Amino acid sequence: MQQPHDKKTLISSGKMSRRNLLAGAAAASFVLVQTASGKAFQAALTASELADDPTKVPGVPPGVLGTRSPFEKPVKTPSDTSSRTPLQDLHGIITPSDLHYERHHGGVPAIDPSKHELVIHGMVDKPMVFSLADLKRFPSVSRIAFLECSGNYRGAGDGKIRPQEICGLTSQSEWTGVALSTLFREVGVSPKATWFLAEGGDAAVMTRSVPVHKGWEDAIIAYAQNGEAIRPEQGYPVRLFLPGWEGNANVKWLRRIELADAPFMTREETSKYTEAVGGGKIRQFSFTMDARSIITYPSYPAKVEKGWIEIRGIAWSGRGKVTRVEVSTDAGKTWQNAALQEPVLDKAIVAFRYLWNWDGSSTEIMSRAVDETGYVQPFLKQLLAARGGNMGYHFNPVTAWYLQGDGQVLFKAT
Amino acid sequence: MQQPHDKKTLISSGKMSRRNLLAGAAAASFVLVQTASGKAFQAALTASELADDPTKVPGVPPGVLGTRSPFEKPVKTPSDTSSRTPLQDLHGIITPSDLHYERHHGGVPAIDPSKHELVIHGMVDKPMVFSLADLKRFPSVSRIAFLECSGNYRGAGDGKIRPQEICGLTSQSEWTGVALSTLFREVGVSPKATWFLAEGGDAAVMTRSVPVHKGWEDAIIAYAQNGEAIRPEQGYPVRLFLPGWEGNANVKWLRRIELADAPFMTREETSKYTEAVGGGKIRQFSFTMDARSIITYPSYPAKVEKGWIEIRGIAWSGRGKVTRVEVSTDAGKTWQNAALQEPVLDKAIVAFRYLWNWDGSSTEIMSRAVDETGYVQPFLKQLLAARGGNMGYHFNPVTAWYLQGDGQVLFKAT
Repeated sequence: MQQPHDKKTLISSGKMSRRNLLAGAAAASFVLVQTASGKAFQAALTASELADDPTKVPGVPPGVLGTRSPFEKPVKTPSDTSSRTPLQDLHGIITPSDLHYERHHGGVPAIDPSKHELVIHGMVDKPMVFSLADLKRFPSVSRIAFLECSGNYRGAGDGKIRPQEICGLTSQSEWTGVALSTLFREVGVSPKATWFLAEGGDAAVMTRSVPVHKGWEDAIIAYAQNGEAIRPEQGYPVRLFLPGWEGNANVKWLRRIELADAPFMTREETSKYTEAVGGGKIRQFSFTMDARSIITYPSYPAKVEKGWIEIRGIAWSGRGKVTRVEVSTDAGKTWQNAALQEPVLDKAIVAFRYLWNWDGSSTEIMSRAVDETGYVQPFLKQLLAARGGNMGYHFNPVTAWYLQGDGQVLFKAT
Repeated sequence: MQQPHDKKTLISSGKMSRRNLLAGAAAASFVLVQTASGKAFQAALTASELADDPTKVPGVPPGVLGTRSPFEKPVKTPSDTSSRTPLQDLHGIITPSDLHYERHHGGVPAIDPSKHELVIHGMVDKPMVFSLADLKRFPSVSRIAFLECSGNYRGAGDGKIRPQEICGLTSQSEWTGVALSTLFREVGVSPKATWFLAEGGDAAVMTRSVPVHKGWEDAIIAYAQNGEAIRPEQGYPVRLFLPGWEGNANVKWLRRIELADAPFMTREETSKYTEAVGGGKIRQFSFTMDARSIITYPSYPAKVEKGWIEIRGIAWSGRGKVTRVEVSTDAGKTWQNAALQEPVLDKAIVAFRYLWNWDGSSTEIMSRAVDETGYVQPFLKQLLAARGGNMGYHFNPVTAWYLQGDGQVLFKAT
């Protein structure tokens, strides 16, 4: 066990006066903003505004909505088309809904849920139109599962890149909705139907082809995320949710499903969302997200000290449960099993931990995930070899972190 | 299976034009507010401001923080000392952090985390002071678990009361922090210590006595909630989390733990947080929250239609896993097992569902939880008999809903 606190053994024994306990403590005076939706615990805090003792000033009364501490400012990093979850700032397996990654092809549409409808037609006995209220009347299902963009990889030669940039296009929520299989039975999907088209109601009119078997297996028409209505950025009022499958196929703002006996070969199924795999070949319809992991602590830009470090990270697989995460602290020479935090769920992010006593010499630390199919997360060079030197979608290499002797942590390609 | 949608079988076959699909559809134009922390997708929406077709207008680009749809306004109902989770509006088992219930005795203090410290002293080998950074260096643990105020019961004679009012002082999060047992080993808790005092840094200087065994078993010094830093209303920057135990003992804004060989008999352990149990006796230190359940749909103020209804609700127990939830649709004469949504976790809220074909005649529906100790959630009259006619803390009666012939749902005492 670590003993980092001996220098702080300030109290010899017994009780201490409140004055001593709070020496140097300080509390904030907040600028309260009452909004239409209730208390917003906004703050304009400076050190000079802090009260000496938070126990001596009345606190803020209960409100209609809770808030973040003004000292906490987790943010996504937006581009024109996506914004990335700050994985290095998070704990556990649930992503706060407002920090769930975004990837849009035409921005976030503004949809009035009372006007939104889902049409299911094509190779069915009885084409139908469902309102949101209709969908909520059907038997419901919930599951905690990750969502990941298939274009979720970046690296950087100088090593100054965080987990957020490397693979921040993955997030996890508890999703609730109606099983697509329930709606398939309702409309009477033809036994000859092998694919369906999912169409979104955004400015891109996103369309993807999905094999019918996924609809029968575990697809969800989701209307809730982490307890509440799905967020606009994740497809309000309804999205397709395909556990373990690439984000793009989980069509947001879903308004139409068409059953057919062939894929539709949409715009997003040509140069986009396909991978060069070497030998001049292109892989199409590679829906399943392979197993992956990343150490989120320590990671760039952290600087660590010699001694005990709990290496922490997350792992996930679109093929089922993660069965093992291995950690190396010697640049891949040897590997040890990390502890997996329960619950370890199917097609879900799992948190892993490995306690390590760093001797202060420079080294590389890395993790690799293994899932229940036996798949082992590959190194970058293995992926490049398999892809004929091409990068692209479904790129899930082991991420290594280089620890300098001074404790600075930097990304290192594997 | 239900067939509520036949009237909507509008499409005879084949493909439909986009024009038809979107007939009557409407999208919103939003008033965007750029805040210091990034995009706020605020809206001043009226029907007249809605665009005709959301696919014809560019959407909002990705942002640093996601938002709620302006059509969704879930709120807690605040009093001077508490605010209650809108259970009837939620899905699944995770409570959005800003909708987590609040119960304060001196309001929410404003605490600068860089100044906050946790002292552990008393019957220990080595009293110590821990900064937040110190706490985060220790091995961490996460768990999804409920939190419930022991005063979590209300009824109403006229039946016009929602789950939010009846038992909205329960919520669930994924909590992350350091096991208190780890810190107990660090400071060397004396084998003679049997209780500890937990003290908060709020204006109430909340103090509670907790048996040491809970600290060794599963208590957590929590610094994260649903992935991010714990919210101010739930104890930022650190709180005591005692899985399954009454909320008040889970001291927020935790600044001091003192080990001793007797309870401290604090202000909150006298007339407060004790129960009259009949025969002129008072029960003190009744920490564990008993098994409970409530049907959240249908519930007041919902009005339902004859036909298939998925009865939905949540159940939880502070004594372990919920093993069974029984539902009655005939005022308690007969009971059927509801389906429990996986994962069913220890000391955690579980979602239950029961599909029922309502014939339209007036009746009462109700649920009761059974946990792994065999405990069965009691009726109100059983509780009152056991408590000598007194109500008070740890009051967890079966909640019944009266369905009128016209479909209006009303609360009914059991």
